[in-house]
Amino acid sequence: MPETRPDTTTEPASGSVSEATVGIVGAGQLARMTYEAGTRLDVRLRVLARDKDETAARIFSEVAIGSPDDPDDLASFASSVAVMTFDHELVDVDAIRALEEDGHIIRPGARTLDVSTNKQRQRDVFSAAGFPLPVHRRVTESSDIEEVAAAHGWPVVLKAAQGGYDGRGVWIVGSVEEAVRTLGEARDAGLELFVEPQVALDRELAMLIARRPSGDAATYPVVETIQVEGICHEVLAPARIDDALADKATELGLAIAEEIDVVGILAIEMFVVGETLLINEIATRPHNSGHFTLDAARTSQFENHLRAVLDLPLGGTGMSAPAAAMSNIIGTASTGDPRERRGQALEIPGVCVHLYGKKPRPGRKIGHVTATGDELDDARTRAREAAEILAGGAMGGPR
Amino acid sequence: MPETRPDTTTEPASGSVSEATVGIVGAGQLARMTYEAGTRLDVRLRVLARDKDETAARIFSEVAIGSPDDPDDLASFASSVAVMTFDHELVDVDAIRALEEDGHIIRPGARTLDVSTNKQRQRDVFSAAGFPLPVHRRVTESSDIEEVAAAHGWPVVLKAAQGGYDGRGVWIVGSVEEAVRTLGEARDAGLELFVEPQVALDRELAMLIARRPSGDAATYPVVETIQVEGICHEVLAPARIDDALADKATELGLAIAEEIDVVGILAIEMFVVGETLLINEIATRPHNSGHFTLDAARTSQFENHLRAVLDLPLGGTGMSAPAAAMSNIIGTASTGDPRERRGQALEIPGVCVHLYGKKPRPGRKIGHVTATGDELDDARTRAREAAEILAGGAMGGPR
Repeated sequence: MPETRPDTTTEPASGSVSEATVGIVGAGQLARMTYEAGTRLDVRLRVLARDKDETAARIFSEVAIGSPDDPDDLASFASSVAVMTFDHELVDVDAIRALEEDGHIIRPGARTLDVSTNKQRQRDVFSAAGFPLPVHRRVTESSDIEEVAAAHGWPVVLKAAQGGYDGRGVWIVGSVEEAVRTLGEARDAGLELFVEPQVALDRELAMLIARRPSGDAATYPVVETIQVEGICHEVLAPARIDDALADKATELGLAIAEEIDVVGILAIEMFVVGETLLINEIATRPHNSGHFTLDAARTSQFENHLRAVLDLPLGGTGMSAPAAAMSNIIGTASTGDPRERRGQALEIPGVCVHLYGKKPRPGRKIGHVTATGDELDDARTRAREAAEILAGGAMGGPR
Repeated sequence: MPETRPDTTTEPASGSVSEATVGIVGAGQLARMTYEAGTRLDVRLRVLARDKDETAARIFSEVAIGSPDDPDDLASFASSVAVMTFDHELVDVDAIRALEEDGHIIRPGARTLDVSTNKQRQRDVFSAAGFPLPVHRRVTESSDIEEVAAAHGWPVVLKAAQGGYDGRGVWIVGSVEEAVRTLGEARDAGLELFVEPQVALDRELAMLIARRPSGDAATYPVVETIQVEGICHEVLAPARIDDALADKATELGLAIAEEIDVVGILAIEMFVVGETLLINEIATRPHNSGHFTLDAARTSQFENHLRAVLDLPLGGTGMSAPAAAMSNIIGTASTGDPRERRGQALEIPGVCVHLYGKKPRPGRKIGHVTATGDELDDARTRAREAAEILAGGAMGGPR
């Protein structure tokens, strides 16, 4: 019996929105979870993957193999689609800008990515706009670190401007010696650093906005994130904060979206210190803090990202349950094949299991569980229990 | 840049549930809508399609080309998967039985399909079990029709035992002459017929059950279907009936599921006459009356079908909104490309649009819209409005 698949060698679709193919640069779980939105809306999707075993490449019917870092591969991919968007922000903004100048439609565009892909630039732009930020200082020599420590105390936090995720690119240093050593290593690796005092947080929030090219935007309920060593472990929706603070977070998010002219999903991570909000960092793509929307909101962040980049009307962002908790499934030394414990996890009532088909490694996000219910604490307990079953053991973090 | 896709030439997966590939026979919209459940649970899915342009074949990464009617193609497909299930019931039950005897796992199995694929057999089995049915009689000669008409009046309804869908295989005949002509044509086409009086209905209901091999079952809320000339136009969830009748429908459904030992989704269409329920027909696969579950229930019928055929615990079947209305998008003479009006339809608040990527023809289901809300009437108006925009005009049916 012959095997086949949809033809992947056709010319790029025309500029008409109805026929447009959307290309996603990067084949991680965000691209993977966007696929169902494409199927529902009959939007043809194509993914740029490094190899055919990447999580999204395994389920897309149209896969282009290439490197998101290679300007030629990016250009070739851009030519095969009507609109290009992203699974991650590890892209060369100059290459994106050149493609835009050549007439390719890229959403979010180079102007936005120039800010969102660089944490130092985020701070520069948000400072200039008067948005609330933690104390921060660019590090050119070790005295920059020492002066922040002198004013605010040790330890301080060093962050790489680019390339960090899931706790990578962040160092907590407790002394001059550690600071000098970290700075030296970072320079050797070609990293730019900045320094911040370690903020004494009350909690961390995240919010998601979907925004169209026209500026039309839809905001999701503000959520709370539980981070452990820089890795998001849980998301609680809605956040356990009062309406005034939630409104403040939403207003700040909308102002950021407008300031950097986002198209697609914008995720903003914020610190709460008393009644004060401080921007931690942003991402201009679907985000881990919005995975709960697949099972607990009227429209998923993935569908609203796709609608936004195609300039289609945005879908409802309200929750479809009184409370939802998302727990990441983070690889442990004993994870093995999480599918072997899928049945056990699904015995827990009211959980939605998402497995990314990624090879488990300790500390790697290989899936997530969302639980919905009337009470947040109860949903949280169930989500976490199912996630730990699938992770094959305790993943750390608060109980 | 090279193109690739997941390898489709590997050997069948082992018998272990965790690694099992599920094969779906038939590549229509039901297979297409099942794909997201496979992605979420990291279940590898494979589809048997007649050609690569069928709606599911366009989005699956693993497609086998062959005919569901050809025993060799079926056998070859069965050998490439761990569990085989179905998108439609137009299959040869003898071929399925032979594959089962060869050790293939097929869910639902031949014993169930023997009943569900033949409306006459449904009536024979359900009569013997004492389940409530409309008056019905097998037609061997025209006097069978005349006797039913003499007892219950013209017109009567002639139905083909096999192969009908969306109003095909059903004839309403008003006279002896019409009956004789229809019977002759049916015989020429090799069809077996039975006759029923035209039932004066108060409403039509449908209910869905997901059932595991162990008999463990989950029931969805009973819904109301609005049928026009044998084609389902709308589904209203929950049905506008009292709890006692809903309970009666649920009990009847569970009894049917057990009687024919269903594995997967069982859909039962019922007539309501006063407080009496009569079984119209059943299907043992995901069903149009359950499309609302994608956007308005805790677990979609597609995911619960997949869980059931893999013998995994079933997901919650409660609604995630107070009310939901589903309106099919049925092709009209002026449908054209529905994607051209996608933006206009999505302007309507609270609608979820599903387009199947099928070539529109008058009377053909090419997608559906689900609207959720606090009030059923309001949701129904919105779903219908969006569906008519996408259909390019009025689709007929009650307003």
